[in-house]
Amino acid sequence: MTSFKPKETAYDHIRAVEWENGRLKLIDQRILPGKFEHLYLDHLPESAKAITDMVVRGAPAIGVTAAYAVVLAARDRYKESPGGWQKTIQADLNLLAEARPTAVNLRWAVEYMRGIINSGISGDPVPRLLAEAQRIHVEDIAANRHMGELGAALIEPGSGVLTHCNTGALATGGYGTALGVVRSGYAAKRIKEVYADETRPWLQGARLTAWELVQEGIPVTLLADSAATYLMKQGKVKWVIVGADRIAANGDTANKIGTYMTAVAARYHKVKFMVVAPTSTVDLSTPDGNGIPIETRAESEVLNYGGTRTSPEGAKAWNPAFDITPAELIDAIVTEKGVVTNPTRDKMLAMMQK
Amino acid sequence: MTSFKPKETAYDHIRAVEWENGRLKLIDQRILPGKFEHLYLDHLPESAKAITDMVVRGAPAIGVTAAYAVVLAARDRYKESPGGWQKTIQADLNLLAEARPTAVNLRWAVEYMRGIINSGISGDPVPRLLAEAQRIHVEDIAANRHMGELGAALIEPGSGVLTHCNTGALATGGYGTALGVVRSGYAAKRIKEVYADETRPWLQGARLTAWELVQEGIPVTLLADSAATYLMKQGKVKWVIVGADRIAANGDTANKIGTYMTAVAARYHKVKFMVVAPTSTVDLSTPDGNGIPIETRAESEVLNYGGTRTSPEGAKAWNPAFDITPAELIDAIVTEKGVVTNPTRDKMLAMMQK
Repeated sequence: MTSFKPKETAYDHIRAVEWENGRLKLIDQRILPGKFEHLYLDHLPESAKAITDMVVRGAPAIGVTAAYAVVLAARDRYKESPGGWQKTIQADLNLLAEARPTAVNLRWAVEYMRGIINSGISGDPVPRLLAEAQRIHVEDIAANRHMGELGAALIEPGSGVLTHCNTGALATGGYGTALGVVRSGYAAKRIKEVYADETRPWLQGARLTAWELVQEGIPVTLLADSAATYLMKQGKVKWVIVGADRIAANGDTANKIGTYMTAVAARYHKVKFMVVAPTSTVDLSTPDGNGIPIETRAESEVLNYGGTRTSPEGAKAWNPAFDITPAELIDAIVTEKGVVTNPTRDKMLAMMQK
Repeated sequence: MTSFKPKETAYDHIRAVEWENGRLKLIDQRILPGKFEHLYLDHLPESAKAITDMVVRGAPAIGVTAAYAVVLAARDRYKESPGGWQKTIQADLNLLAEARPTAVNLRWAVEYMRGIINSGISGDPVPRLLAEAQRIHVEDIAANRHMGELGAALIEPGSGVLTHCNTGALATGGYGTALGVVRSGYAAKRIKEVYADETRPWLQGARLTAWELVQEGIPVTLLADSAATYLMKQGKVKWVIVGADRIAANGDTANKIGTYMTAVAARYHKVKFMVVAPTSTVDLSTPDGNGIPIETRAESEVLNYGGTRTSPEGAKAWNPAFDITPAELIDAIVTEKGVVTNPTRDKMLAMMQK
């Protein structure tokens, strides 16, 4: 199959990652919503760089992208050395796994593809690996749709919800995790109002979530991140719904910086807090949030906006890309294997073993 | 006196408002820190517009500006009608009082000047009113210095503190309220680290607070507003120190949007929360926070940044300029008349009657 774009349905018309004419095709998320352009990639190193540079972002989308990048590497390495490619590709896989540190889906996808490679493939590896990448892609979307149903079922009809960052089609193979719940919940009239934090410094909420929802015809109201607490005070929000970059064995959740702010505020206001992520985001080898590495990104992301210096020379900045929300602040973790309420280590393990 | 710039001292070299050669001189805070320029104003209507447009902002600075604007109006109206200016100026005063709705200092300054006018001034009113405006200005700075000492005394030596918005020399007659405590606390080595929320949407923290502190040689670390909660989790902050736009009789405090977020997060992390404001900010006629009108500003402030559209066409925004922090989340209110810990209506009244 030279091209692959998973099929679209109601409220679901955006694909951040595609395979087209033997190339990896990515929406360049750095320039949305001003410009809608694709990048076409033919090799693994440039694909790893696209992940580091946030052309594509969102833990599940990074995982899907990585799977396709492995196909690109296999094609190159097999061409160089039909007998030795399984050895020479190992350094590519290691490079790819390091493209970003926090999201576990990246490592999950790389190690999954490495397992296929190491188990032995005879002849041209591209058809087999491409089939695996497409399976990961399709299964991610299917998981998201299922999570959308499960998460929406928790929400009282006619509710307002708040989301943080972008967890939609742009952040996944398609449909989205937390924004998948928003899609399903809006379709089922359980969700009436969607509020989106703009999500500084990278403005995923303003640039990406708002763009996605406008594309799909779902009304969205943006707010400055710091207004989220006051919004909850107004009683306008019944649930905060977020994604995850890594969930530790006890349910502690790493997600975009600011998620913890919304969780603390939600608890204070008796608003419910839902994390939506596929089980590929759950890392049973990390016992709790203390073990999750938090990526610190460049100070310039906070000190500037859109190429304009917004702060004076001489100011420093602290720019953690993620924070940890402890399990005790989470009311429900929704995965494709089911819903875990008030997560604990035992409940998480039971869910994962389903 | 044709010019007036209150004297500078250590860590205090910035004056947002001056009277120079018979004109009102304002730092244009909309273009800081990229450009440092002054606006010179000769009439009240353009001064009211400068307040609305946020050339000058910060409740005490608005109050000082308003007092000088009344002098400008008196000069114009007296020239038009030496016998009738006390009548014709009333509409000017009303216009000025409406320039922004939340900060009570604006109304306080206008009504104070109206009282002087209505009590009868014979001959040219400018010398008398200018002397009053300058007294308001000087007393604001003196109050800030005193509050700086009182607030700093509450802080354990070597502490990290977090501030939100700009409450410094730029927001006051000089020295600052919350940032006055930062100045005094840093000079006294009680404050070691200053963290400043960037304060979207208007970026007062990134643009103004960071600029002020860099000018004064006080190291500052900026962060995205949503990271403040996670910063507290790290144990890096002992006090949150903020200003106020209006304090109700029971201690409920209106301040820049996001203040409430920091208060909720501070309580959750057992970080102390301090409000610093002169008694002209206390409004005993408003029993509690529910009675404080909250200015909603244009959606475009959230949907854009620096002339660049950051969100898609079709997205809406919610843009309250202020929020209310309930008294129960406040550990100390510092005024020039003293410190009220765990504020209540009775304690606030006792402090005001000093």
